Amino acid sequence: MRFITKKRTKKAGLPAESLVYTGDLKGGVIKIAVMDYDDQQIAEQELTTVDQCIPYRDKPTVTWVNIEGVHDARILEKLGECFGLHRLVMEDIMSTDQRPKTEDFGDYIYVVLKMLSPDPKNGAIVSEQISLILGSNFVLSFQEGIEGDVFSPIREHIRTGKGKIRKMGADYLAYALLDAIVDNYFIVLEKFGDKVDLAEDQLIAEPSESTAKMIYGLKRELLLLHRAIWPVRELAGALTRRETTLIRDSTVPYLRDVYDHVVQAIDTVEIFREILSEMIGIYLSSVSNKLNAIMKVLTIIATIFMPLTFIAGVYGMNFKHMPELEWKYGYYFIWFIMASIGVGMYFYFRRKKWM
Amino acid sequence: MRFITKKRTKKAGLPAESLVYTGDLKGGVIKIAVMDYDDQQIAEQELTTVDQCIPYRDKPTVTWVNIEGVHDARILEKLGECFGLHRLVMEDIMSTDQRPKTEDFGDYIYVVLKMLSPDPKNGAIVSEQISLILGSNFVLSFQEGIEGDVFSPIREHIRTGKGKIRKMGADYLAYALLDAIVDNYFIVLEKFGDKVDLAEDQLIAEPSESTAKMIYGLKRELLLLHRAIWPVRELAGALTRRETTLIRDSTVPYLRDVYDHVVQAIDTVEIFREILSEMIGIYLSSVSNKLNAIMKVLTIIATIFMPLTFIAGVYGMNFKHMPELEWKYGYYFIWFIMASIGVGMYFYFRRKKWM
Amino acid sequence: MRFITKKRTKKAGLPAESLVYTGDLKGGVIKIAVMDYDDQQIAEQELTTVDQCIPYRDKPTVTWVNIEGVHDARILEKLGECFGLHRLVMEDIMSTDQRPKTEDFGDYIYVVLKMLSPDPKNGAIVSEQISLILGSNFVLSFQEGIEGDVFSPIREHIRTGKGKIRKMGADYLAYALLDAIVDNYFIVLEKFGDKVDLAEDQLIAEPSESTAKMIYGLKRELLLLHRAIWPVRELAGALTRRETTLIRDSTVPYLRDVYDHVVQAIDTVEIFREILSEMIGIYLSSVSNKLNAIMKVLTIIATIFMPLTFIAGVYGMNFKHMPELEWKYGYYFIWFIMASIGVGMYFYFRRKKWM
Amino acid sequence: MRFITKKRTKKAGLPAESLVYTGDLKGGVIKIAVMDYDDQQIAEQELTTVDQCIPYRDKPTVTWVNIEGVHDARILEKLGECFGLHRLVMEDIMSTDQRPKTEDFGDYIYVVLKMLSPDPKNGAIVSEQISLILGSNFVLSFQEGIEGDVFSPIREHIRTGKGKIRKMGADYLAYALLDAIVDNYFIVLEKFGDKVDLAEDQLIAEPSESTAKMIYGLKRELLLLHRAIWPVRELAGALTRRETTLIRDSTVPYLRDVYDHVVQAIDTVEIFREILSEMIGIYLSSVSNKLNAIMKVLTIIATIFMPLTFIAGVYGMNFKHMPELEWKYGYYFIWFIMASIGVGMYFYFRRKKWM
Amino acid sequence: MRFITKKRTKKAGLPAESLVYTGDLKGGVIKIAVMDYDDQQIAEQELTTVDQCIPYRDKPTVTWVNIEGVHDARILEKLGECFGLHRLVMEDIMSTDQRPKTEDFGDYIYVVLKMLSPDPKNGAIVSEQISLILGSNFVLSFQEGIEGDVFSPIREHIRTGKGKIRKMGADYLAYALLDAIVDNYFIVLEKFGDKVDLAEDQLIAEPSESTAKMIYGLKRELLLLHRAIWPVRELAGALTRRETTLIRDSTVPYLRDVYDHVVQAIDTVEIFREILSEMIGIYLSSVSNKLNAIMKVLTIIATIFMPLTFIAGVYGMNFKHMPELEWKYGYYFIWFIMASIGVGMYFYFRRKKWM
Repeated sequence: MRFITKKRTKKAGLPAESLVYTGDLKGGVIKIAVMDYDDQQIAEQELTTVDQCIPYRDKPTVTWVNIEGVHDARILEKLGECFGLHRLVMEDIMSTDQRPKTEDFGDYIYVVLKMLSPDPKNGAIVSEQISLILGSNFVLSFQEGIEGDVFSPIREHIRTGKGKIRKMGADYLAYALLDAIVDNYFIVLEKFGDKVDLAEDQLIAEPSESTAKMIYGLKRELLLLHRAIWPVRELAGALTRRETTLIRDSTVPYLRDVYDHVVQAIDTVEIFREILSEMIGIYLSSVSNKLNAIMKVLTIIATIFMPLTFIAGVYGMNFKHMPELEWKYGYYFIWFIMASIGVGMYFYFRRKKWM
Repeated sequence: MRFITKKRTKKAGLPAESLVYTGDLKGGVIKIAVMDYDDQQIAEQELTTVDQCIPYRDKPTVTWVNIEGVHDARILEKLGECFGLHRLVMEDIMSTDQRPKTEDFGDYIYVVLKMLSPDPKNGAIVSEQISLILGSNFVLSFQEGIEGDVFSPIREHIRTGKGKIRKMGADYLAYALLDAIVDNYFIVLEKFGDKVDLAEDQLIAEPSESTAKMIYGLKRELLLLHRAIWPVRELAGALTRRETTLIRDSTVPYLRDVYDHVVQAIDTVEIFREILSEMIGIYLSSVSNKLNAIMKVLTIIATIFMPLTFIAGVYGMNFKHMPELEWKYGYYFIWFIMASIGVGMYFYFRRKKWM
Repeated sequence: MRFITKKRTKKAGLPAESLVYTGDLKGGVIKIAVMDYDDQQIAEQELTTVDQCIPYRDKPTVTWVNIEGVHDARILEKLGECFGLHRLVMEDIMSTDQRPKTEDFGDYIYVVLKMLSPDPKNGAIVSEQISLILGSNFVLSFQEGIEGDVFSPIREHIRTGKGKIRKMGADYLAYALLDAIVDNYFIVLEKFGDKVDLAEDQLIAEPSESTAKMIYGLKRELLLLHRAIWPVRELAGALTRRETTLIRDSTVPYLRDVYDHVVQAIDTVEIFREILSEMIGIYLSSVSNKLNAIMKVLTIIATIFMPLTFIAGVYGMNFKHMPELEWKYGYYFIWFIMASIGVGMYFYFRRKKWM
Repeated sequence: MRFITKKRTKKAGLPAESLVYTGDLKGGVIKIAVMDYDDQQIAEQELTTVDQCIPYRDKPTVTWVNIEGVHDARILEKLGECFGLHRLVMEDIMSTDQRPKTEDFGDYIYVVLKMLSPDPKNGAIVSEQISLILGSNFVLSFQEGIEGDVFSPIREHIRTGKGKIRKMGADYLAYALLDAIVDNYFIVLEKFGDKVDLAEDQLIAEPSESTAKMIYGLKRELLLLHRAIWPVRELAGALTRRETTLIRDSTVPYLRDVYDHVVQAIDTVEIFREILSEMIGIYLSSVSNKLNAIMKVLTIIATIFMPLTFIAGVYGMNFKHMPELEWKYGYYFIWFIMASIGVGMYFYFRRKKWM
Repeated sequence: MRFITKKRTKKAGLPAESLVYTGDLKGGVIKIAVMDYDDQQIAEQELTTVDQCIPYRDKPTVTWVNIEGVHDARILEKLGECFGLHRLVMEDIMSTDQRPKTEDFGDYIYVVLKMLSPDPKNGAIVSEQISLILGSNFVLSFQEGIEGDVFSPIREHIRTGKGKIRKMGADYLAYALLDAIVDNYFIVLEKFGDKVDLAEDQLIAEPSESTAKMIYGLKRELLLLHRAIWPVRELAGALTRRETTLIRDSTVPYLRDVYDHVVQAIDTVEIFREILSEMIGIYLSSVSNKLNAIMKVLTIIATIFMPLTFIAGVYGMNFKHMPELEWKYGYYFIWFIMASIGVGMYFYFRRKKWM
């Protein structure tokens, strides 16, 4: 639960617009990688100071500045000043518990969403906040730097000129980044699906209390997925409808494609939700069936042996005058009676489908 | 579960617009059948190369190109170029896990939805993606080619000139194809209804854990149906309202008819959903009633025999001085006492409605 | 379940607009009754051929053609041609599984909804499709002819000139027919309420598994009611807002009245739904209380007699040296011990509120 | 249940607009009290005939006609004619099962809603229909006359000139009447809250089947409250937005205030609904905990005494050669064994937290 | 429950607009603190009479009047007159059970919402109503005065000139106050999260009936949070869209930021709701698993000992002719039989996974 509210409370009471990093990752150096390209040429540079990015600002070529690490307020502040970003945007970038959203500031569009990836160690889902700033000829992308770089295939496409990316503007680059993030959702969902399959196999083979806990755990993980993916739909829809000159008409179909993928991911989340609910239903009904099975055994045993024990008890009484005790074959006769009762009951239960 | 997400992940990391078939059907030759007709004449041709479809493009007659198989990227690419389709459309056609939708590209309208059919072998529902492209004078229909041809009755109507289809334009043909797909939903729903009936019969006759599993299985199958049919409503509604010259006013009432049918199919799905929920309720209450019945038997047996066994135990004690043991009719008297207790309890339980 | 989908599948594969009757009533002669009236005069005629209705078409008086039976495609086809109706409308009239709706065709308005009536034999709800065509000076009403005539009171009002009906136009007549159908919903709902009362009485007096089945049965019947009544709200709302010259301003308040009644009927359906849900809750809690009661009895009996039987068993042992057995009042002493234990437990359970 | 549908069925089959009283109160004289006032003067009159209200119609002062009893069709008919009301309005006033709503007839606005009050005898909620007609300079208020007069405080304010009411127009009077009715909802809700508190106390102290029935009973009563209050929100909202000259701008903030209060009342109803649902949850979990507690006792008793009884049984066997029986301290040894088993089990259960 | 409705009923029957304090805090002196500042200067004053605030009204500087305590009608009345507030606003300020909302009165905007804070003693959530009046150059803030002052950090920022607050207008001050309140929600939510964690730990370690009660208690507390926070979303959204000159364009992004935070808080509330629902599910399944575990023990004990006791009973019978009793090793043989049965059953249960 702590992940939800702990971070926010760091800021309560501070003056508005305070730049405070609310994530978990404190140390490490912030890496700033610039890629500048157009149809003809391409240049790459790893920045050591923020000031180095000033020349890129007004170049007509497409500039992509990728920042890994958002925990150093001074660096981000300078960067924001360089590209003329509002302080609130910088605050949002550093607050790593943002709800996915997009905001249009006229000169640039701010997009924030969650990168999801399965933890290679234990398969848990790791969430990292990604902020994108789309200007007329530049794209800034901010990663928290927890995970491996999801943007490396795009970087490769730019370098090799594969696909249309070198021929298109900054808006297409922003689309490509968005698309990479959304495509990753499906990998996470597939991994999640594998875990659901596992729980299902266990549910069918041998449901136990740990199965129930596993299903409830998956339900909670799904809650996290839902929370990360659901608002992206609105975000993508808003970008598609955006009345701005920053997004060209030719890029809109691509954004619509991203929107479709997000809707598909949400659909999948919803289906998992229903499947997990059903699995809980199956689990509960299997538990009560098991109880019934146990009760049946108990009842059968008790029902068969109680009368027999009673009969044995009767002939264990010490009355002076008990004629049956004197009979020559009394003992065998009683055995016969008791066997008859036992067998009779057995068939009675069979007919009643209790066995 | 795998059906949901496995396919999508094939594409993550690839450049956008990559044409990758995400379905299960890899082999086989793609069949391209052309039907060209107007009120007066009709021509049919099975294409061997994609280039053969170029002459049809600008003919004033209605041309219907039916493509069976969408797994060969090169053929589809050529076809898309021939009819001037956007690369993203071709990508969508090959990604066979699209959510049903319609998109207006000005020159043509793209419609994608699911063809549902019961598997003749085991009665499971098979889903196949159908893409339709409606141009001013042509209709392209893409089938995955898993199932038998659902469009053959329409082909027959065109050949024989039955109905209005030969007198109407390409939009009416597109309507007829849509109508055939939607009408098929009812066949699937009826088959599904039969399975629900079966489960219900079993539920009433003799509910067991397998009944519960069957009901939950039907619920999951219904989830699939819901996912396939629900978005078609929006799709059909959008076509009805479409402000495009591609759909004539005279065709709108027919599309409205399709819309009505989809709404009816969705209604049916909703009713099945509620019926299945009720069946689960009935199942659970029958399980707990069964438990009660078993408990009653156990309680009655225990309640009758425990006191009797106790009494027998008392007179099995070896005290030196136990006057009753000396009585002449002590044994019979005790039998009488025990019988009285047994019969008394029996009637007590009858009065309490436990038996 | 069969009622939902069987009928539709008759039509799959046929050319669109095929006139196929999808109801259950095959035989019988179609009755066509014409009533032609204005403020001054009134004429009634039972038609033997469809052609006889041609003269009525353009008369300035209000003409009401009531058709009982929609299973003969040829007669309906002719009738449709006579009054200039679209083929799709005729198709909808014959398909007796339409969802209630209204459609404006300019010259006329098409309304289709369900007439509900309790089956006099077993109290089950019978549903019959009623189609209304409102033209400028005529109203056509199509009944399936299953049930007795619900429109006879209106016919009587026209004959006797009771109410405003003779002074108003065709739109008021259509309103009166709608009103009669909607008013009948309340009769059905009241009958349904009686059945709910019955189930509730049984639930309070002596809940058994058959009570649960009865409640679930009522829930399913309510589903049917909901399905028939719910869409009528939209229908009535659409008529009220209708921008058409076919409905005069003076009739709108009356249609708004019908709308209010439908909303009231839907409210009642919703309340029944919640009441039935609660009844299931009460049933389940009564079942588990019963289980608890039984368990209590079992536990009390076992808890009292097990120690006593154990004691009796101890003194039934055959050890050579058991001093108590030699005591003079050992037997009485043991009885005293056992009685003390029994009575003590009895009061212990009383104090714990188990008895 | 009967309260829902019985009344409506009185009217089915009658010509539309028939004035039929559908309430329960048949007898009694209808009281018509007129209050005519402006800033300067005030006149009160108890009418004996309806005609006496004609002079008030066109007076510039504010006239408030309060009618107690709506079961006499002739009187209401005359009254409606006097103030120029539509017959359908009169019909609605007499049908005491109206859904709360407001309708604008141009010259006047019709408002109908429910007055709720706790029955002083048994605390059940009594519902009475109140109709208000707001004209340019008059307000008609129709009460069924079941309960004591809720409007008397307003009457007092008018007489004494307390508050702004004498300085404002008829619309403010209508607001004051509405406000009185809505304020009463809170009294009813508080009484309801007391009953919920009572049920909760019982739930915590000693939950029994009667507690469950009480909670379900409260849920049903809440259903009634919800049905009465919910539509008032829409009604109040419509009045606030009303584009009519009958409601002055200065009165709108007051109506907005009423709207706020209704929303608050609905909020309270929703909270009660959730609280009752939770109480059912608590009840069910307490029932199953009780079952568990009972089962634990049973299991402990059985688990301790069964082995002991078995041991006693063993040494009650009559074999010729049973060496233990001959031992001098065999009896004491066996007692020691049995005591060890009993004590061991006791501690075992303690450690397992079963006791 | 009482907190919901008791307060409102104080006012029923009184003339509208009566100024009645509906909160719990009766005594105490009302504190009125004025802070007047612009970019250059700052003045603070504690008012002793309301008249002292008149000079501040028309000063061009930003004036912040903070009123602590709203239980004295006369003081508030005077204050309202001084700043030209509508009587209904004053009534709302004193009615401390308002639903959060905002209303635009042209000259000023009225905002009312709930300040939430954890009670330092028992951790329960305390709710206090805060009313804000934003005029062109003044802000009035009304606190009930239950809790410590949440606005002191803002007061400090103004005094020290930290942040932008001194350079901005009254609208920015209103934003800062709102932001402080909303930021506090996260502190409350974090405290709530701690309690949820606690309940969860207990649920996993050792679920008991008190755990269930704790979870249901948290659910109810969440209901309160939901009720307080949910309407703030609408409120913040309305302020963002506000077409008023009172809010400058430069302040809108800040209000949008508040809106985002509220949405985030609501998201958190929703997640807690789902988590609590799941915890109830886990609790119930753990209860039924426990029951199953107990039943298993009971069944195993009974199933093993019943046959053994029966056998012992058989050889305790006193028949004259029982050959086994005479056997030399009969006793040992029977022990062997009984041990075999016991061990056999033990392994049978192990294989059935009952142990």
